[in-house]
Amino acid sequence: MKINGVPTRTIRPATDDATVEIIDQTRLPHVLAFEALSTLEQAAAAIKEMKVRGAPLIGATAAYGMALALASDASDARIADAYKVLLATRPTAVNLRWALDEMRSVLAPVPVGERRAAAWKKAAAICDEDVALNASIGDHGLGIVKALWDKRRAAGAIRVNILTHCNAGWLATVDWGTATAPIYKAHDAGIPVHVWADETRPRNQGASLTARELNWHGVPHTVIADNAGGHLMQHGLVDMCIVGTDRTTAAGDVANKIGTYLKALAAKDNGVPFYVALPGPTIDWTITDGLEQIPIEERSADEVIFISGRTADGRIESVRLTPDGSPAANPAFDVTPARLVTGLITERGVSPASPEGLLSLYPERRAQAAQ
Amino acid sequence: MKINGVPTRTIRPATDDATVEIIDQTRLPHVLAFEALSTLEQAAAAIKEMKVRGAPLIGATAAYGMALALASDASDARIADAYKVLLATRPTAVNLRWALDEMRSVLAPVPVGERRAAAWKKAAAICDEDVALNASIGDHGLGIVKALWDKRRAAGAIRVNILTHCNAGWLATVDWGTATAPIYKAHDAGIPVHVWADETRPRNQGASLTARELNWHGVPHTVIADNAGGHLMQHGLVDMCIVGTDRTTAAGDVANKIGTYLKALAAKDNGVPFYVALPGPTIDWTITDGLEQIPIEERSADEVIFISGRTADGRIESVRLTPDGSPAANPAFDVTPARLVTGLITERGVSPASPEGLLSLYPERRAQAAQ
Repeated sequence: MKINGVPTRTIRPATDDATVEIIDQTRLPHVLAFEALSTLEQAAAAIKEMKVRGAPLIGATAAYGMALALASDASDARIADAYKVLLATRPTAVNLRWALDEMRSVLAPVPVGERRAAAWKKAAAICDEDVALNASIGDHGLGIVKALWDKRRAAGAIRVNILTHCNAGWLATVDWGTATAPIYKAHDAGIPVHVWADETRPRNQGASLTARELNWHGVPHTVIADNAGGHLMQHGLVDMCIVGTDRTTAAGDVANKIGTYLKALAAKDNGVPFYVALPGPTIDWTITDGLEQIPIEERSADEVIFISGRTADGRIESVRLTPDGSPAANPAFDVTPARLVTGLITERGVSPASPEGLLSLYPERRAQAAQ
Repeated sequence: MKINGVPTRTIRPATDDATVEIIDQTRLPHVLAFEALSTLEQAAAAIKEMKVRGAPLIGATAAYGMALALASDASDARIADAYKVLLATRPTAVNLRWALDEMRSVLAPVPVGERRAAAWKKAAAICDEDVALNASIGDHGLGIVKALWDKRRAAGAIRVNILTHCNAGWLATVDWGTATAPIYKAHDAGIPVHVWADETRPRNQGASLTARELNWHGVPHTVIADNAGGHLMQHGLVDMCIVGTDRTTAAGDVANKIGTYLKALAAKDNGVPFYVALPGPTIDWTITDGLEQIPIEERSADEVIFISGRTADGRIESVRLTPDGSPAANPAFDVTPARLVTGLITERGVSPASPEGLLSLYPERRAQAAQ
């Protein structure tokens, strides 16, 4: 998406074919700092220190990390070593392993002398695939937003209000984002979109990242406390919700950032359509009951107890919010049952959140899902 | 309630009969500082600067402010002047006006020479009435908690989990609080209560005040992001909710801190009882439709954009959370429809959240409510 009018991917090779440029996301939203990665170690550190985050962007960075690793040594041993180093950065990230596996299997049969070039080419292809996939989610979501806007406009509305939670945005992918792709597509198509960005405590990805990228691209938006969405829906100020997901069951239950379930309940209670945008690969065809079968990560209580931001004199400072001695709990995700989801927006189209709905888009999974 | 084992009211006259002691709540949760008020001006400043907050405590402080004002001059003119000064501190606080009207009407017929003593006596009576009212809410709520605990214990539970939102606590009243009164009564009766305290963005009264007072009194509790409650309910980790309210309609709709509605929806979806604790005087018998008839205050966006806390070296610092240029919205309350409320806990007993339910407790209001 655009930063100050300039189309920008979250990761991009420099013209020297020897470095890759990323945005240091740990400094967002207050400072925009690009960082050049020119070694395996730098790429690994960028992932480990969460300078890049979001499954697709982590995968893309790992792919380029492998390309950087082969600069002076493209032997089988070097590939194996780089694979190990990069995989260890975020061991539970499924997309990271997938990207590394892709790189390894493409490079293995290539003569050593040609591997470096092949690696750069494959890393670029992995990025382009992610962009195409998200753009396709955006195109399918655009149809929904457009139909809604036509209806709202006919009723006298001057804008279409979309609520989103957390950051399933451009900054988590190479471009477009997932939940934000329909928003950017609609905005770019001239539809007057306005986004309610849930701040998304405790890590505040909405207030920091979603607000930041919408602001850069020029999409009108307003940051709200997570508590506010239900009230806005009661008063007709939300026309639809679009959120992302980390994992979707074959039945259409979706695991997403903690608090998503509460917004889905409010949407249902107020007749507001609630959509989930997702790439097909995040569907887990082996499970059907999200509440029973998706384990929820319990993260550090410190994320609730402390928060960081920018002081009046421009320093980034962490401050304690709770009294000494009061414990905190921090479940990081929750599961929204399929019954609360109006539709799933995928790269192949929009389907109901149901086994049959998903299989209508992914018929090749029928045998697997029936197990 | 207790601080380090010592029973403490949020406001109390000193033994000298010339000063009143409050807790400077603007310094909570990080610093416990008592402050002595000995003049009208100090009392007015304490209210205006929100060193005291919560309707009952504001009323009590205003009553003592009037008593302090009469130290050297108890003339009609002085009373009128003090009334004006105190009322101007928080012009929209209904309880403030009520307490001042009480003081004025008690003092008017008293000879000037006896007014000072009468004022101290009446201020003390206003405090005692608040304590008695909240204690009574606590006793009625205790019955519910006890019945629930008996049931949970029989099912093998080791504690009863109560979720609350915002701070309808001891610190907002003279003692006990409203939503917290049943919790303190249950804890003091030996029932193993554990409280999930919603942090309650954007002003974080849960993370700062509710956690602080539960911690002082020794009630086990855990602070959570406002996003977490639904997930906890889905997994059977919440046995009941108790919240306060700023205004209740004759039909049982309740206006309370923003986000309350989302928790009520989640409670309904998971079969968790959702109770609202309230003093009878906060029922507005003239309205029946909370969503249509209760105006919602829109507070400063800065409450969402900035947050303050304690730095590692002990300073209180305000930090910015959102990117420059991103606007924020801050509706301060929402309305929970009566259909989501299991019961209303009042000083007269517990009733369904319905016109007939409320009238069964307040039959003298029948004529008024029928209008």
